Amino acid sequence: MDYPDVLAWRDGHIEALDQTALPHLVRTLRISTVDQLVRAITSLAIRGAPVLGAAGALGVALAVRQGLGEGWDGPRLAAEIERIAAARPTAVNLSREVSAVAALVGQGSAAVETAALAVLDATATTSHQISARGAAFLVAACGSGPLAVHTHCNTGSLACLGWGTALGVIRALHAKGVLSHVIVDETRPLLQGARLTCWELGRLGIEHQLACDGAAPFLISQGRADAVVVGADRIAANGDVANKIGTYSLALAARQAGIPFLVAAPESTIDQATPTGTAIPLERRADEEVTDPAAPAGTKALNLAFDITPAELVTAVVTEDRLIRRGEWPP
Amino acid sequence: MDYPDVLAWRDGHIEALDQTALPHLVRTLRISTVDQLVRAITSLAIRGAPVLGAAGALGVALAVRQGLGEGWDGPRLAAEIERIAAARPTAVNLSREVSAVAALVGQGSAAVETAALAVLDATATTSHQISARGAAFLVAACGSGPLAVHTHCNTGSLACLGWGTALGVIRALHAKGVLSHVIVDETRPLLQGARLTCWELGRLGIEHQLACDGAAPFLISQGRADAVVVGADRIAANGDVANKIGTYSLALAARQAGIPFLVAAPESTIDQATPTGTAIPLERRADEEVTDPAAPAGTKALNLAFDITPAELVTAVVTEDRLIRRGEWPP
Repeated sequence: MDYPDVLAWRDGHIEALDQTALPHLVRTLRISTVDQLVRAITSLAIRGAPVLGAAGALGVALAVRQGLGEGWDGPRLAAEIERIAAARPTAVNLSREVSAVAALVGQGSAAVETAALAVLDATATTSHQISARGAAFLVAACGSGPLAVHTHCNTGSLACLGWGTALGVIRALHAKGVLSHVIVDETRPLLQGARLTCWELGRLGIEHQLACDGAAPFLISQGRADAVVVGADRIAANGDVANKIGTYSLALAARQAGIPFLVAAPESTIDQATPTGTAIPLERRADEEVTDPAAPAGTKALNLAFDITPAELVTAVVTEDRLIRRGEWPP
Repeated sequence: MDYPDVLAWRDGHIEALDQTALPHLVRTLRISTVDQLVRAITSLAIRGAPVLGAAGALGVALAVRQGLGEGWDGPRLAAEIERIAAARPTAVNLSREVSAVAALVGQGSAAVETAALAVLDATATTSHQISARGAAFLVAACGSGPLAVHTHCNTGSLACLGWGTALGVIRALHAKGVLSHVIVDETRPLLQGARLTCWELGRLGIEHQLACDGAAPFLISQGRADAVVVGADRIAANGDVANKIGTYSLALAARQAGIPFLVAAPESTIDQATPTGTAIPLERRADEEVTDPAAPAGTKALNLAFDITPAELVTAVVTEDRLIRRGEWPP
């Protein structure tokens, strides 16, 4: 695609496309400190579970560099690395990749950087495998279409590198010539669907229509989609899925309409240490993301960034390694 | 309430609170021509099914006045009245009240004005009766709480005069001392929940929290509400309900969570001439309401203003005259 790298390691710095500026401004952030990285993650300049994992891996390399320059001792370095891991709580990929790379700190900065770059590469490769397997599943489940697919939030190159997870599946359907069009939820409050997914689909020349999140279940009930495909931020050991707020409503509607509800995510999203969805921490973000600018001053909000979809509503989870159908958990 | 009349007839003109300017600006429109009225209705400066009915009734009086001043013949007057009736297609109240008052045109302008003002008065009275009956139903169904109630769009004084329909039920629960708080959907794309319902609840001193529409089904699944209460724009003869887009998703979630889903609306919303929900015309509005300003230029949208909730998902419909429970249609 003809836009700058979503995430890269250059001369000991992280470079990241600023996803808060898209689609109207294409701007790359140069990140040189842990503070800057944490700010980029919490502001959602860097976002999407797989990209968060890769950014966390690069973040360890960045912390090691900064620590060498500023003379941090071991506990200080560990604390700074922990700040990266904890920058956002729901996507398990972030803390998982930080931990994996942090385990190599004792081997020196070169080993850390090599491991972090390997995570970056693997993230892209993984997304291609997920895309292909997910598309094959949908063709088997729905026929060769052309298929209308409903999706939520952004799960494309911007979120995952490579082709993406859910949006990668859609792209693979398009590449097979079996995609009719995509219905994209705008994904309030931060509008990742309207801003990012429409931007990616536009650049790919894939037909799409934007819909309000509240409209999605009704559109599904009216036969507007042959399948729903979404990503995941964490999948519990029993198959419950944490994903962007709004996902649960799509799963409920898909079951009612009798169409497949597919979750596309890397294996690293499956968290054996979390037994069920109720154990997944759901990030609650600032009220102002919902209230500003429309509501009266002082209005309070209930702004959960994620929700939990029970395993019973998920037709299948597709990863780079396998397809896990409803009723097959634990796989 | 300490805000200007939502809708009034003064010196042969319609005065209406401009609901597109709220909550940040409280401004009254003075409407002197059919053109101005149609524009106020299509822009949603005047909105809400019961208020649309009352505005339609006053609109006939306005058309008669304008016709006398400009020397319209009978066909011209009939055409102008028809333009008012057709300004928005989904809420049956508009065309119904226009027809009722238009039937009196032969009796002269005084008779028309008297009939229109009677519609205005009846709209407010009706809403109080709906409010009281709906609150009694919820207390019987859910206990005396304190109850948390989830609602959608705006169905208060602004939409209905008097106390409102769904918001009137909530206000009646508050007056009984059995309301804990209200969860208000923001109601994209035009944010009537964020702008109007939060404004009304704030002025009434009723505790409330704003939520994104896509979050609502999950919040309901988590036990955050004891009941869902919404209004209606048209109810088919079989009990299917047309209401603001997003309503269907709440009904699906309420059934899944095992909590009541109550529809509060005047009898005039029940349309015996429409056999089922599939026969209700659903207004599709401009793409820009959804795409601007976040999506890339040229993005297409699927912007239905209303959806249909099947009767089987509606626990009960409460009107000024009766309570109609699931399975009792046709009543």
